Amino acid sequence: MTASSHSEGGQGLGKQRIEALSDAIFAFAMTLLVLDVKIPKVAEALVTQEFLIQTLLDLWPKFVSFVMSFVILGMFWVAHHGYSHFLKRTDRPFLWINLLFLMVVVFVPFSTDFLGDYPRQRIASLVYGCNIMALGLTLYWQWAYATTGHRLVGSHIEPRLVRKGKQRILMGVLTICAAMLLSFVNPALSLIVYVLFPIAYLQPSQIDLHWTHAHD
Amino acid sequence: MTASSHSEGGQGLGKQRIEALSDAIFAFAMTLLVLDVKIPKVAEALVTQEFLIQTLLDLWPKFVSFVMSFVILGMFWVAHHGYSHFLKRTDRPFLWINLLFLMVVVFVPFSTDFLGDYPRQRIASLVYGCNIMALGLTLYWQWAYATTGHRLVGSHIEPRLVRKGKQRILMGVLTICAAMLLSFVNPALSLIVYVLFPIAYLQPSQIDLHWTHAHD
Amino acid sequence: MTASSHSEGGQGLGKQRIEALSDAIFAFAMTLLVLDVKIPKVAEALVTQEFLIQTLLDLWPKFVSFVMSFVILGMFWVAHHGYSHFLKRTDRPFLWINLLFLMVVVFVPFSTDFLGDYPRQRIASLVYGCNIMALGLTLYWQWAYATTGHRLVGSHIEPRLVRKGKQRILMGVLTICAAMLLSFVNPALSLIVYVLFPIAYLQPSQIDLHWTHAHD
Amino acid sequence: MTASSHSEGGQGLGKQRIEALSDAIFAFAMTLLVLDVKIPKVAEALVTQEFLIQTLLDLWPKFVSFVMSFVILGMFWVAHHGYSHFLKRTDRPFLWINLLFLMVVVFVPFSTDFLGDYPRQRIASLVYGCNIMALGLTLYWQWAYATTGHRLVGSHIEPRLVRKGKQRILMGVLTICAAMLLSFVNPALSLIVYVLFPIAYLQPSQIDLHWTHAHD
Repeated sequence: MTASSHSEGGQGLGKQRIEALSDAIFAFAMTLLVLDVKIPKVAEALVTQEFLIQTLLDLWPKFVSFVMSFVILGMFWVAHHGYSHFLKRTDRPFLWINLLFLMVVVFVPFSTDFLGDYPRQRIASLVYGCNIMALGLTLYWQWAYATTGHRLVGSHIEPRLVRKGKQRILMGVLTICAAMLLSFVNPALSLIVYVLFPIAYLQPSQIDLHWTHAHD
Repeated sequence: MTASSHSEGGQGLGKQRIEALSDAIFAFAMTLLVLDVKIPKVAEALVTQEFLIQTLLDLWPKFVSFVMSFVILGMFWVAHHGYSHFLKRTDRPFLWINLLFLMVVVFVPFSTDFLGDYPRQRIASLVYGCNIMALGLTLYWQWAYATTGHRLVGSHIEPRLVRKGKQRILMGVLTICAAMLLSFVNPALSLIVYVLFPIAYLQPSQIDLHWTHAHD
Repeated sequence: MTASSHSEGGQGLGKQRIEALSDAIFAFAMTLLVLDVKIPKVAEALVTQEFLIQTLLDLWPKFVSFVMSFVILGMFWVAHHGYSHFLKRTDRPFLWINLLFLMVVVFVPFSTDFLGDYPRQRIASLVYGCNIMALGLTLYWQWAYATTGHRLVGSHIEPRLVRKGKQRILMGVLTICAAMLLSFVNPALSLIVYVLFPIAYLQPSQIDLHWTHAHD
Repeated sequence: MTASSHSEGGQGLGKQRIEALSDAIFAFAMTLLVLDVKIPKVAEALVTQEFLIQTLLDLWPKFVSFVMSFVILGMFWVAHHGYSHFLKRTDRPFLWINLLFLMVVVFVPFSTDFLGDYPRQRIASLVYGCNIMALGLTLYWQWAYATTGHRLVGSHIEPRLVRKGKQRILMGVLTICAAMLLSFVNPALSLIVYVLFPIAYLQPSQIDLHWTHAHD
């Protein structure tokens, strides 16, 4: 920890507390998602096994949107995590871009709830898509701000790695754009893309590979 | 901290931030449990001492399921804690298995609420059992993934210890399986098993013992 | 950090993650308190300035119980904080006593809400008192467990300090007991004690003094 | 970390845990803000695209107050962060001033919700203004307490820097005062000031500059 702490403790606002706030906000936003999955309380005398099973089954859009948003937020947490590994210092503008990013994160439970309530409505699908796209764009902004002229990253970071990192985010943004356009054909189609696109990010990125090589 | 930080900071995604996210999600899920224990607000002029006492007493399934889930989540937090102590590095698949585990954790307030509302319904008991079983299975997956071929743990870790760790989880999963089968006889029986089985985990495991020996 | 980290990383379950979980649970429980302070939403055309002011004023029991519980939880957080400073190691029973303590912490938003809804009812006052008393008793248990035979604390800790720490907690528990008895005369009296007793804990304890001397 | 950890671990109550509690409470309060932005659930057969769009548009005061409060809390988090960087030790009174500050932070979701529900009512605007002013005053108190006679900060800190830090907070408090007075003319005017004043704090303060110079 010696080397990294040295640079963290000294220059600009501490990276550790930014990470602490980010982790806590991600954790809450991910946990809040479940608050909207609710089974109505009915007097126990009136309730039947069939009624409860039917109610559970009717909640499927809620379950799907819960899992989808949890995975997407998890994906962005992993990405945020990966990029912040390269930060050597922070400054006030970066802090504010990060807060903007976190504001978009906090908004995800709202758009997830909206989509879970109205899975067949185009407007719900578009609001959700905008939310995810904003996640991508603010993350891109962070990474671009930090790396331009090696502003907040070490001088030894390769330009190829920076470019790969940007491309990886932009590809996600473009996929979401396409999904939003598909919602004008049929909102169900955009839902399918939202569910499937995180799978592309399960595999390790160039950034991870570089990383492993550098330190092993 | 020198030795462990060295390996954490360097290889793969930082263990510390994974722990921070996990701790926050556990803390939040454990706190959310209390949100569903509610006493209805009645105009104070109409309310009587007897009415309030009766309302409190009628909440017993809520109190029981709150305590039960808090203890079970606490138990899994302790276990997660114990296993992650052995991690020397992390990688992207491990991160995703951990996120899957956390998704199951976040689901516990939902199934607890469901069970607290309908303690005599088999379906509520089964949903709760599935949730706890999924906790066990995803924790097992983490541990198995991390230890296979010493992928993420140190090379000095004994095979006996790895096996013991797996058995300890599987025994819990099997107990929950049995409890779920019992719910077909009577849902109350499965409740009793859910309440009692954490007691078996109060005693220190082989893992703790090894640990203490190794460092004392 | 070198000396303390050495003992933390090595023996038993890490003190740092226990503190992280405790801090997060305290933070959530303290924040959840505000969720129950709500002004009803009325159509804006019908609403008047007088109505809103009256509604705010009618919320006074909610405000009082919010502030009271926030201060009491803050006081216990400070105390928990102070005691855990002396811990040199942890073990599984300690972890479970701590989880029990945290379960009582999580229960505070429930009993606060109950007291805020029915400030003139004895039963609400008693439930609240039991909750605070349980906080004191579980904290006492932790401290007694950790210090008996220097189980989890350093061998240089003075018996006088241990005794002072216990007395300080027990005095609070006795005060709450007295407040609960007073509620049989008039619930308002016990409320007054609940509000006032944290003031006694604002002044530094023997523990803090010892501490400052030891390190200055 | 060596130098700063040395002073943290040793004297008074640990700065790190105070920061951990503060970060978690900030994160939670910032996330709770979104809970009040809700679209009502209507049976899907009856819902139309136009109805949903209209409902979203009608939520504009909720969106504005959400963004405003998120930015203001973010601003105070940055400020809290900046000041605590200079702390060399803590003591019990400081801990309590910090808890008071956090209590005001926790109150923000309440006053935001109130303002979002009744954006045209003077009382809502005044309550919100008082909340933000209390944030400023408790932060001022912290900083004044810590720096008076170099009580909790290092002896090398310049008096000019301390004075600048105080002025920066007081300017914000005065701005909010002015906004509250404007609400007697028209509540909409005070809203505009609440939205605009954080912009002044986007630019780096003297404190940041000093900081960067000192360590670069």
